[in-house]
Amino acid sequence: MPKAILLDISGVLYEDARPLPGAVEAVRQLRDKGYPLRLVTNTSRLTAAEIHRQLSGMGFGLSPGQIFSAPQAARRYLAAHGLRPYCLIHPNLEEEFADLLDLPQPNAVLVGDAESRFDYAHLERAFHLLIEGAPLIAMGDNRYFHSRGALRLDAGPFVRALEYAADTQALVLGKPSADFFNGALHTLGVAPQDALMIGDDVEGDVLGAQKAGLQACLVRTGKYREGDEARAPGAGLAADLADAVRRYC
Amino acid sequence: MPKAILLDISGVLYEDARPLPGAVEAVRQLRDKGYPLRLVTNTSRLTAAEIHRQLSGMGFGLSPGQIFSAPQAARRYLAAHGLRPYCLIHPNLEEEFADLLDLPQPNAVLVGDAESRFDYAHLERAFHLLIEGAPLIAMGDNRYFHSRGALRLDAGPFVRALEYAADTQALVLGKPSADFFNGALHTLGVAPQDALMIGDDVEGDVLGAQKAGLQACLVRTGKYREGDEARAPGAGLAADLADAVRRYC
Repeated sequence: MPKAILLDISGVLYEDARPLPGAVEAVRQLRDKGYPLRLVTNTSRLTAAEIHRQLSGMGFGLSPGQIFSAPQAARRYLAAHGLRPYCLIHPNLEEEFADLLDLPQPNAVLVGDAESRFDYAHLERAFHLLIEGAPLIAMGDNRYFHSRGALRLDAGPFVRALEYAADTQALVLGKPSADFFNGALHTLGVAPQDALMIGDDVEGDVLGAQKAGLQACLVRTGKYREGDEARAPGAGLAADLADAVRRYC
Repeated sequence: MPKAILLDISGVLYEDARPLPGAVEAVRQLRDKGYPLRLVTNTSRLTAAEIHRQLSGMGFGLSPGQIFSAPQAARRYLAAHGLRPYCLIHPNLEEEFADLLDLPQPNAVLVGDAESRFDYAHLERAFHLLIEGAPLIAMGDNRYFHSRGALRLDAGPFVRALEYAADTQALVLGKPSADFFNGALHTLGVAPQDALMIGDDVEGDVLGAQKAGLQACLVRTGKYREGDEARAPGAGLAADLADAVRRYC
């Protein structure tokens, strides 16, 4: 049995702004069982404060401090290394990154899920900084996410585009980076082998967690696609979060 | 000595709409020496007819049939395989591809250097077709090209983005594909080892040609960047086309 639980958010707790069946009750059970809990997310279309507000509105009883997001990890990294990023990020994130926008002489490129800002002009601006030697910092490199019945492009494809264009490699400050999982566990004081990661993304959540030494469980909700479990034979498999909590917690 | 010559165009013959010094005379020398010649280009911002018109305007004495372009190779491939492409291509190419635009129920994705059409909406449309099983056909996968003193993003980064998003691999109908070099040589009736490829792109031109069995020469014009030659130790190196013709033809 794990001593702490990490949960992905979108596609595990909710989908299209509605909690998934049994998810609110499953989170309550985890709390009642006394599990230390972190919600780990690469979402860079929303601030952590907004994520917490939405989860609260859906009935999830969680505190803001239980959210561990890639944008927060990126902010910490940029500050620790004195970097002035060119921010290719979503308009929703501008409030959280207000002090880092439009800095003179940027010396890093920060990429989140910028959605429609991923256009030729913005990508070319980032490319020019990269070939001058700026490091590429990515808030996740997920391929896609699931929303309103469709798969939407996430930041990952554009991170790969910039890596290829400038012949460089991104530092990914989000899942599946082991640093990111370890960062979340550090706030809980729990060792990787004592933690269980539950997610719908076989790469970012499950394989990433396993590589960092955590136990992992794939749920068949959100972006799960038939057959994904074959790629992570050592992981648990559950119909949804409620089923995962029943089986593994 | 080679029996036939393949030349890249942009960055070898001309730059920013002006012939490079000595290039017109070098092409005339190749013709006078009787070399069979093909201009091989991944350019997908211009039709072959427009490329020929521009080269003629600069004083290059070449016939339209001497141009072997990735868009032409793509058209042949699509026709041979009965494919109806979704075309993510440059507006300049729409005339050449008029019969292939806006086809119902596309079953392939064709990507050229679409410049500002590389935006989130167009890429997501391509992504959705790819995950339904449509093949990804790329007119080259160059990282960038050189224009008006700046490096501009080429099709390659966006090909990589789509490959990663949909977990697929593009068929590249342009340099550095061996099929493309062989296609050009086939029109000349010359074996790879008897042909010399002269280009400014160490990957697309030089390494691609070498992999296809051709001799190759890197010129230090166009997109050449200091140190590129270290990546292709078996290739010739010349200051420009005139120097390459002097040394190797």
